[in-house]
Amino acid sequence: MTALKNDTLIKALLRQPTDYTPVWIMRQAGRYLPEYRATREQAGDFMSLCRNAELACEVTMQPLRRFDLDAAILFSDILTIPDAMGLGLYFTPGEGPKFERTTRTIADIKALKMPDMQDDLGYVMNAVSTIRKELDGRVPLIGFSGSPWTLATYMVEGQSTRSFEVIKTLILNEPSTAHSLLSVLAESVIAYMNAQIQSGAQVAMIFDTWGGVLSPAMYREFSLRYLQQIVEGIDRQKDGQKIPVVLFTKGAGQNLTDMSQTGCDALGVDWTIDLSQARELTGGRVALQGNLDPSTLFADPEAIRAAVRRTLDSYGEGPGHAFNLGHGITPGVNPDHLGVLVDEVHRYSRSTRAD
Amino acid sequence: MTALKNDTLIKALLRQPTDYTPVWIMRQAGRYLPEYRATREQAGDFMSLCRNAELACEVTMQPLRRFDLDAAILFSDILTIPDAMGLGLYFTPGEGPKFERTTRTIADIKALKMPDMQDDLGYVMNAVSTIRKELDGRVPLIGFSGSPWTLATYMVEGQSTRSFEVIKTLILNEPSTAHSLLSVLAESVIAYMNAQIQSGAQVAMIFDTWGGVLSPAMYREFSLRYLQQIVEGIDRQKDGQKIPVVLFTKGAGQNLTDMSQTGCDALGVDWTIDLSQARELTGGRVALQGNLDPSTLFADPEAIRAAVRRTLDSYGEGPGHAFNLGHGITPGVNPDHLGVLVDEVHRYSRSTRAD
Repeated sequence: MTALKNDTLIKALLRQPTDYTPVWIMRQAGRYLPEYRATREQAGDFMSLCRNAELACEVTMQPLRRFDLDAAILFSDILTIPDAMGLGLYFTPGEGPKFERTTRTIADIKALKMPDMQDDLGYVMNAVSTIRKELDGRVPLIGFSGSPWTLATYMVEGQSTRSFEVIKTLILNEPSTAHSLLSVLAESVIAYMNAQIQSGAQVAMIFDTWGGVLSPAMYREFSLRYLQQIVEGIDRQKDGQKIPVVLFTKGAGQNLTDMSQTGCDALGVDWTIDLSQARELTGGRVALQGNLDPSTLFADPEAIRAAVRRTLDSYGEGPGHAFNLGHGITPGVNPDHLGVLVDEVHRYSRSTRAD
Repeated sequence: MTALKNDTLIKALLRQPTDYTPVWIMRQAGRYLPEYRATREQAGDFMSLCRNAELACEVTMQPLRRFDLDAAILFSDILTIPDAMGLGLYFTPGEGPKFERTTRTIADIKALKMPDMQDDLGYVMNAVSTIRKELDGRVPLIGFSGSPWTLATYMVEGQSTRSFEVIKTLILNEPSTAHSLLSVLAESVIAYMNAQIQSGAQVAMIFDTWGGVLSPAMYREFSLRYLQQIVEGIDRQKDGQKIPVVLFTKGAGQNLTDMSQTGCDALGVDWTIDLSQARELTGGRVALQGNLDPSTLFADPEAIRAAVRRTLDSYGEGPGHAFNLGHGITPGVNPDHLGVLVDEVHRYSRSTRAD
């Protein structure tokens, strides 16, 4: 494959010096872009878009045509693994993802199909290789998966939840059942990430979207230990290039310290903690990715630029920062505002390097 | 008024030694109790229940008849102040509170009626004095208010929100407008809490429900500074008794350190941080109230007892802990499970004191 022309993100995630702070945005291929909405309509439903390699490649490339972003991220869903396990993923407008069958007992877990990375998830691998080809080395491609805990919340609850009552009852009443499910998921996530890397993913990111709803003790037992297993199981080298592994837990807070000791390369950080504090908590062991409040993009361009500078300043000096929002970009944002953000990240970070 | 027979909560909040750890529960008078649902139906809508002193007293007393709780909390809503300012509070089933008019401009702020604590909020004061009389010194009565930031989120957005887009845009684009609103609210909250104390409230709690959606820098500027003003403005003494002031920000995380320096007596803590860590962050300056995950009450009695013991152990030795959930009790909980919790808090904390 073509050599990488812009490896700024890879370097930043490996805590190597860069000329400027690289930036990409969670959900950069998404509903805030009119061209995304058009392609999505063409595809029909959301999963049809994910399953069509050409269209998934198209929406992945769309934000790169508008903005000077330092990475592309695979367009896919975090729930592809449980879907491939035979649970019947579907989407109800305004209600988020749902499964036809829940997974709550040992019998349910035994009935899960172990997904084959080509037969069941080949559509993801096709999307990865199609996008890599289209990128032609312009920027790195980030592959991703949901974390075992996050996947389990949807599988046990059967749908999105705000209270997590069913899975929290399960981990308290039947912790061994929960661990059986999480173990199965951890193995699948490792196989899934390694297949993505084989297909061309150059960064591996694990979204532990719902880790932050647990107490720290429960987080360590039911989420972190499986993240650790995944970090250890991912192939970190491909074609002589190191593959950085990034973990992201929304609302990680104090858990950042434990997360930084898993051996991962970088941590995603949300906006409820200062990057300076996150740096202290993680003791220089990892790079940090984040962490502007996505709502900032609703403000005026001057306010956005000021907020970008505050975020860059809060990280401070030295390598190891990749700029991002603290969560996915919000659908109602004016796309031009993201352009303002990207340009200010590059301009201001170059200016401080030159000091 | 009658002397307090059980002052365990007051002592714990003032970091004085107690024979056992006192416990009360956020939303202990609420939908999980069938007798609450019956009284609520009798009253009609939610605000009619708040406005009727006899019925508000009845629902306040209901959990005390079932459980050995160490405090009562005024039955009311956090949005009584903006309602009294003339914004037209109403509730739509399943959608939370709404206002007929939003508050987004200087003109809107100037049009706000400054509520009179007797003419406009006398129904709250009637409820406080009615409950105090009915309690007859059995346990202390907690009065409360929403924080300026939390009240402002509803006033600016006009309703519940998950994204806080309108108010976050306001604080970035027009910070001085936001500060005008927050200043007006801080003054009203002080007057409101002092009127409650005059009427018989023995603890003052400020619910900063939405402080945790801000970055730490924004939290300090738009929430904490008004909490500080309120702590300084509350009458901390009544009839020779000290009135403890408790601040609660959901998702406070690292902000706990700043909060502990406001001069308040205690901080409410949610379950996303260990009490041992919260103690470190607050350096012994305040008592801590919390912090069991409300979902724990869906588990079996034995799992609930174990979780209670872990929470008590996580605080560790020494005075200054009042047991509570980390957020309000969930409507679907079996009331008997709360009895299990309350009894285990008392039993286990007595047993560790005796060691």
